[in-house]
Parts: sequence; structure tokens; C-alpha cells
Amino acid sequence: MPLEGKQLIGQQAVLSDGKAIHAVDPATGETLSPGYPAGGQAEVEQACALARAAFDAYRETGLEARAAFLETVAEEIEAIGDELIVRAMAESGLPRARLEGERGRTCGQLRLFASVVRAGEWLDVRLDPALPERQPMPRVDLRQRHIALGPVAVFGASNFPLAFSVAGGDTASALAAGCPVVVKAHAAHPGTSELVGRAVQRAVAKCALPEGVFSLLYGSGRELGQALVRDPRIKAVGFTGSRSGGTALMQAAQSRPEPIPVYAEMSSINPVFLLPEALNNRGRDLGEAFIGSLTMGAGQFCTNPGLVIAVKGEALDAFVASAAEAVKASAAQTMLTPGIHDAYVQGVDGLVASSKAREVARGNAGEGPNACQTGLFVAAAEDFMGDEALQAEVFGATSLVVECADLDEVKRVAESLEGQLTATLQMDDADLDAARALLPTLERRAGRVMANGWPTGVEVCHAMVHGGPYPATSDSRTTSVGSAAIHRFLRPVCYQNLPQGLLPEALRDGNPAGVSRLVDGQREA
Amino acid sequence: MPLEGKQLIGQQAVLSDGKAIHAVDPATGETLSPGYPAGGQAEVEQACALARAAFDAYRETGLEARAAFLETVAEEIEAIGDELIVRAMAESGLPRARLEGERGRTCGQLRLFASVVRAGEWLDVRLDPALPERQPMPRVDLRQRHIALGPVAVFGASNFPLAFSVAGGDTASALAAGCPVVVKAHAAHPGTSELVGRAVQRAVAKCALPEGVFSLLYGSGRELGQALVRDPRIKAVGFTGSRSGGTALMQAAQSRPEPIPVYAEMSSINPVFLLPEALNNRGRDLGEAFIGSLTMGAGQFCTNPGLVIAVKGEALDAFVASAAEAVKASAAQTMLTPGIHDAYVQGVDGLVASSKAREVARGNAGEGPNACQTGLFVAAAEDFMGDEALQAEVFGATSLVVECADLDEVKRVAESLEGQLTATLQMDDADLDAARALLPTLERRAGRVMANGWPTGVEVCHAMVHGGPYPATSDSRTTSVGSAAIHRFLRPVCYQNLPQGLLPEALRDGNPAGVSRLVDGQREA
Repeated sequence: MPLEGKQLIGQQAVLSDGKAIHAVDPATGETLSPGYPAGGQAEVEQACALARAAFDAYRETGLEARAAFLETVAEEIEAIGDELIVRAMAESGLPRARLEGERGRTCGQLRLFASVVRAGEWLDVRLDPALPERQPMPRVDLRQRHIALGPVAVFGASNFPLAFSVAGGDTASALAAGCPVVVKAHAAHPGTSELVGRAVQRAVAKCALPEGVFSLLYGSGRELGQALVRDPRIKAVGFTGSRSGGTALMQAAQSRPEPIPVYAEMSSINPVFLLPEALNNRGRDLGEAFIGSLTMGAGQFCTNPGLVIAVKGEALDAFVASAAEAVKASAAQTMLTPGIHDAYVQGVDGLVASSKAREVARGNAGEGPNACQTGLFVAAAEDFMGDEALQAEVFGATSLVVECADLDEVKRVAESLEGQLTATLQMDDADLDAARALLPTLERRAGRVMANGWPTGVEVCHAMVHGGPYPATSDSRTTSVGSAAIHRFLRPVCYQNLPQGLLPEALRDGNPAGVSRLVDGQREA
Repeated sequence: MPLEGKQLIGQQAVLSDGKAIHAVDPATGETLSPGYPAGGQAEVEQACALARAAFDAYRETGLEARAAFLETVAEEIEAIGDELIVRAMAESGLPRARLEGERGRTCGQLRLFASVVRAGEWLDVRLDPALPERQPMPRVDLRQRHIALGPVAVFGASNFPLAFSVAGGDTASALAAGCPVVVKAHAAHPGTSELVGRAVQRAVAKCALPEGVFSLLYGSGRELGQALVRDPRIKAVGFTGSRSGGTALMQAAQSRPEPIPVYAEMSSINPVFLLPEALNNRGRDLGEAFIGSLTMGAGQFCTNPGLVIAVKGEALDAFVASAAEAVKASAAQTMLTPGIHDAYVQGVDGLVASSKAREVARGNAGEGPNACQTGLFVAAAEDFMGDEALQAEVFGATSLVVECADLDEVKRVAESLEGQLTATLQMDDADLDAARALLPTLERRAGRVMANGWPTGVEVCHAMVHGGPYPATSDSRTTSVGSAAIHRFLRPVCYQNLPQGLLPEALRDGNPAGVSRLVDGQREA
């Protein structure tokens, strides 16, 4: 079935009449067919009405039925076959191997959430049985579980056309929690979105779920996106993108008559701290590995290492020299969109023009229209701390090395940073005390602290935190990657003295759902 | 030691030079000594600097040390003795038995949080061990725990001068999470606040904690309160009070350069649904019990039953007649403050003046200056749903009975309600189907759903939810009463490949802290 360019509203496919959105192949500049006529208020209205109508039934699907649905979505995505990879390559400029891997991650995280749904830990069941004889007052029977918040608006991200788009992490975790999802497709990859959206539609039908569990809309952020966030039936928002885009959604959500949570993953420069012994012992190797992480995917990962901090001296010079060699040898890779490429060039030009940053090396310029030329710059710690422009994220394969006078200044730089997704320590055994002194700062500043690795490469698992203090995200209390992401879309409800016939299964006597429960504060065996 | 009227900043007691705040005995109108000169920006600055300085050390106190601190606070409050009860009676108009009970609840919840801290479930420890042989990519070692958000601003509530004030639920849960606390005392009970604040100061000193763990400030909401919420070192806010007060704090918190979470417990009318069989079988008894709940504490509980919904007919008439008798016999009780009394009179006058509400009964008028005269009104469902004024909370012992044509209209009224703390079903066995039809709506609208009880009386336990959708609270994902309240002040951090010597104790191999852990998604035995 060829791509149709239609809104997917419940089980329908509807042609809108707005201005058409076209994907552009960033490697060639070619405009891709079909056009996707933009929807607006009317499409939002229809999708949200269906989502609301589906909500009470969908949130009470049994654990097994909901898990099977998530697995069916994964199967339907795999069943699309190579057409999905070919279209995603054309719409993103990303290479085949990366997109095949991303498809694996996308389906893997749907299946991870299926296992999480089945295990039932997310229900956070708590029972405080009645104590009729307690003095001076008896205690009533109290039982708690978590239920879904309501329909969720998900905004597809440009940099993960599969894993953080239509059926990506936000959608998977919201569906796992029991929330219907209305996705706004990212304008950069509408065809990829349509293919995945139809796969989800098929899974909804196969599992005989109410059609409003999923809709996929195309339109402008200012019109369709804002209308979606303002719709009273939407109860939470998932977003991955720019700081300006995320804060606009936060404001829209807060100015509703009923404010709702926004989970926006926005900007991070992911500082890497090179501690003295590690730098002495393996500075040249670190320099090379650093550029490997920096240039991965043309530097378009949220966890790209955009900042390196160390004490200045010969060891740091050797690191920089080694990194510079790797930069010069680095190939130019196609960036995701002309807009992202323009912003990257502007950011790098700002560093070039800055009197406080020194250019160390540039990579190959490339020949395509949207090629990312790697960049490496150096600045003094004092200059860095005094200049907000140097602290801003340059989305792409450019990084800044900050030279400090000593470890105290390293710590001051760490304290001066905004909230981050990650903070990395390169450390050897003899660096343990220095690492220990930095750790409290890094915990306060970042969602993930790592040693002797590189921040790119985010494992989808139970312990992952892809989050962090503002402006890394809008809500540091959560993660957008990994199984704990399900908690973003849940709220607790307490049931007092309800008859067994009225209680949800997970709360009934005898634990018929077989879930982990806290009884009087103790975990039930 | 007599009351001094001083700000308690860390271990210091400081006399400010602002306009003095005086408590008023609401039973007599008498102004109480001493005055509490208001603080402002300078006091906020000092308290927040100390809180920030204390944060890294306090959040890493061991489970046992932190639990012992909470228990010491409880002991120090008990050690104040009758002076606390006498002062709280004078400042609140509440009777001795109620305040002695509230002191017990306050100390009980501090001890509950001590047990929660020791159990360590709140750390939500998750380990995903390294899989070096995994194909196509090895997995690194990933471990997650929760850490404290940072210093928390707590606003004392007027209606619980002990249990939701200086060392009340918000303070106890924030301290349990590892957050230093800066309290803004409620202007209605400054003396009670000083007594409790000094008890906390003594506990901090006895436990040899950094002094910035606790400060207590006096001042106006507009100046000191707003300055506190805007201070960049404050990372979360706890508040119980009016909708206008809570939304003002939400706006201040969102307009910071770094927005922070606000946990505001604001307004709720706590609908009670009388299902047909229960109404038929025991309407008169229900009417009497209803007024018992309505008039408890002069109706000044957040969970006061301000709305009763049922199908009209003889059975409902009998309920209303029985309730009216109880209303007429009800004594006038002193309200907490002249301001609360004025707002109550205004709210009741609005019902009296409304062409849509019919007055059924009024209680005794009383003789004191701030007496609460009980009120009972009736309105038709259509009128209720069409009139926002009838849906507004009247804080105090007045309630509205909404007469519906049938159970479908009962459900429509339920759907029309704003977010609530509680929803109550009065039901007999034959009402099970009707209850089941209402339950999904009640779950969406309220944080606690109960059968055959009354909403007043909030148990402090693990399964309690004292929360609910906006405007009942600012954040439906949490509770402000019960042990789950600790989660409001925590955020997850992931540690990747950290050497054992750098890992927090709860995450180390061999589980030396002895806490419950999720390993590869499975709960460790």
C-alpha cells in the first residue's frame, strides 16, 4: 500500500485540507512525496474525543491483554520490512545500520514495556488492612494502586525517527500505563510516521481495542501542537526536542484551566570530566575515543559530549592534540534536516567568532547540502563561566574543552552548569578522591553519572535515567528512557472499605493478579 | 522560656524589623502576645544559604541516622508538654481533645516516616548488571537510586496548626526524603509555630546535623512567601490552603528561570453519592451520620462533605429531613480565624441569595465572634451543573444536596465535577451495579474513593492518597498524607560503571544497606 498522506484518526485515514507538509531528503535536498496536508483544531477534536471514549476501557485492560498489545505493535512494525528502513533513510539522512539498530531498539522497548506491564510493579499496590480493635480509633481498610492519567499527547522527535517518534519511548510508556495516545508526527519524517502509525492502527484492530487508543496527526506545532496540548481531554504531554519548543509546551500546559504535566526532554551539553590520573595515563586514547562519541550520528544525540573539563597542562594538551587529529580525520555526515544544519552552522560560527574560544580543529567539510563538519574548541574556565553563549548547546558534532587552573576550579565549573542529562568521569584508581569530591555536584546536576564511558549510547533497561534537572528536562523526577518511564503517566488512587466485588483485581484479597504488594509497609512474600 | 517572636534561622533566633504579626484568639477576638515582626528577602536569603550548605551532607545521612532525627523531632514536640496545647487552643479556637489528637498524629507521622526511611523502599533501587558478552552490543553496569530534590519551602496550613504546619506532613516527608526545609509559619498560629520550631531546632542540634536542615520564618505571603518560592536554592514547595493561594505559588514556581514542582493541596467539595438501596434502607441514619461528619471541627477539614448527590424521592426526603434535624441541633463552633469566618459567611450568604438553592436548615448561631452556623441546602441537578457558584467550595460546615432525576443524571453530575480529594459511595449489596457504573468516573475525579464511610478522618498510612486531580491539588501524581508523600521530594539518578568505592551504599554489591532492590526487573529475594 503506497503512502497516502492522511491523518490516522482511530481506525480512519482522513485527508486534511491544510498546507501540505513534505519531507526533504537532507542528503540530496530532494522533496519527497506524498505531501501531508496539515490538520488543525478539527482533527485534534476528533482524535481527542476518540481517545477520551477509549480511556476507561483501555486503562482497565488486564495486564496480559495490554502486554500482548504492545508486543503486537512491535510485530506489526517488524512486518513492515525494508520499506520502513528505506523511507527513514530518505527522510533522515541516517545510515541503514543505524536505522536497523533503531528499529530493533524501538521494538525491544515495546517488548520491555510488555514485560513491565505483566510484572505489575508499576501498580505500586499498597494494602493497609482494617484494624477494627485499634485504640483510640479503629482503622478502616485502605488499598492503593496507580491508574493511568488519561489521554497523552506525544510529539515525535527529529533525531530518533523510530525510537522517539510515533511508536517510540513516550508512546510505549504511555500505552503501557493505560493511556490512549495522540501523536503529532514530526514534520521531518512524515512517511516513516505513516508507516509506523498504520502498524499501530493494525495492532489496535487485531487486539480488538477501542479505536481511540491511538491516533496520528500531521500539522504545524503552533496550530495543531498547541491545540493538542490545550485540549481538556489531554492529561499529559511527552516531547523530545529543542529548549524553545519544550518551554512553549510547558507554558501552554500551565495556562490551561486544568494544568497538566509536560515531560519535555530538551537540551544538554553532557560534561565530561577528565581527572588527572586518567588524563596522565591515557590522555591520547581518551582524545580519540572522545571524538568517536562526539561524531556518532553527526553529533545529533541528546547525550552528545559537548563539553570537556580538565586541569590544564601537558596531559590535557596531549588529549587535545589526539582529539584534534581525530577531528581532522572525521568524515562529514548528513544532518537530519536543513533546519538543524543551519542551527549547527550558526552555533559553530558563534564559537569561531568568540574572542574567548579558540578553534583547535575542524573536520572534513563534506559535499552534500547538509553535511556536519566536526569542530573542536578550547576555552579558559573563567571565560566559560562568564559567558552564557559558550554554555549553550550546539546540537551537532562540535565540542568545547574547558581548561581549569586546578581541581577546585573544575568543581566551580561543575557547579556553574545548568541541569544535564549526563555527567561523565574519566578516572583511574588514584582519582577516587577527586571523583568523590565531584560526585555530589554531579548528582545534583545530572540524571546519569558515569565513569570511564561516553554518554552516547542509552541503554533501555530498568535502571536507566534519561532525565535530569531543568533545562535538560522539564521534570527531573522522571526518565524518558527505560522502564521507569511508565511512572510519568500514572497517579495513585486509594480505595477505602470497598466491597471485594467493586475492588480492582490487583487489590482484591488473595492477590488474584499475582502482583508485588506492600502490606502495612512490608513487601508481601 | 517565654515566646520570643523571633525568626528561627538555622540554630539562631533573630528579631526582624518588619510589621509585627499577632495571633488573634478567634473565640474572644483578643490579640495575643508576642508580636512576630515580619521577615523578608534578607531572612529568606540567610535561611536558603544555610539550607543549601546543609543539603549535600543531610541527603547522605544514613537511613538509621535520618530516622533517628525524625524520632527526635517527635520526642522534642512531646517534651513541650501542655504549653503547646494551651497556645494552640488560644490561636485556633480548636478544642483540647482535637489538638491532643492532632499532636499524636503529628508525632505519629514523624515516626511513620522514620520507619519508611529505615525500610528504604523509597530509594527504588534498580540494578541492571553488566552483560559483557551480550550481542550485538555489551551492556554496561547500570544502577539507579532516588536522591533528594534539594531544599524545600513548606507553607504552614491554618486548619492543622500541628499536623500540617511547622513539623507536619510536608516537613516530615521532605526531611525523610533528605531535603532541608524552610517553613513559612502561618500567620494565624505564630506562637504554636515557634514552640514547634524550637523543638525541631533542638532535634537538629541533638542529632549533630548541619544547622541549615531547618529554618522557620515569619512574614507576609506576598513578600516572604513569594521570595522563598523564587529563591534559586529552593527546589520544591509544599502548601495546604486556598485555591487562590496555591495557584499563586504555582505561577511563581513556573515563572522562575528554573521551574520547580509545587505540591499544593487546595480545594475539594468531596461529593457523597447516596445509592438507591442504601438510601431506602437507612436514609435517616445516613442523614444523621452525614451531619456528624459535616460539623466535625466546624467543617474545616479539606475532606469535609460539601456535596451530596442522590436520586430524588421519598427516601432522599427522609435523608434530608433527618439531616435537617441534626443541623438544627448542631452547636456553633468557633472557626479558625476571622478571615475564614468571613469567607464562610459570604459563601453561605451566596447560597441563601441563590434562586437555585433552597435552604433546608440552619444550626445554632452561637455567641462568640467567629462562630460557624451549620447550613444545609438543596438544589436540582440541572441547576447545579449550570451554575459555577453552586459548585464552589464553602469552607466550613455547610453542604448542598443535589437532587437528580435518575442514576444517569447522578453520573452526569459526577462527570461535571472538578477534581476532588475524595468521593464517597453510600451503598448496600443491591447497589453494586450502580456503584460499578460510577466507579470509573470517581477514579478519574478523586484521589480516594470510599464506600460506606465519611470522608473526614484521613488515616496516616502507606495506602492513603490525600490528593487528586486539579484543583483538589496542583499535582495528581502524589499524596500529601501518608508515607507515599516522600516520593514528592525525590528524583532518580542512574550510576553507570561506577567503581564500588564511589557508589552510594544502597547500590553496592552485596546490598550492605539491606534495602529492597529490583535486579533486571525482578525483585531480589
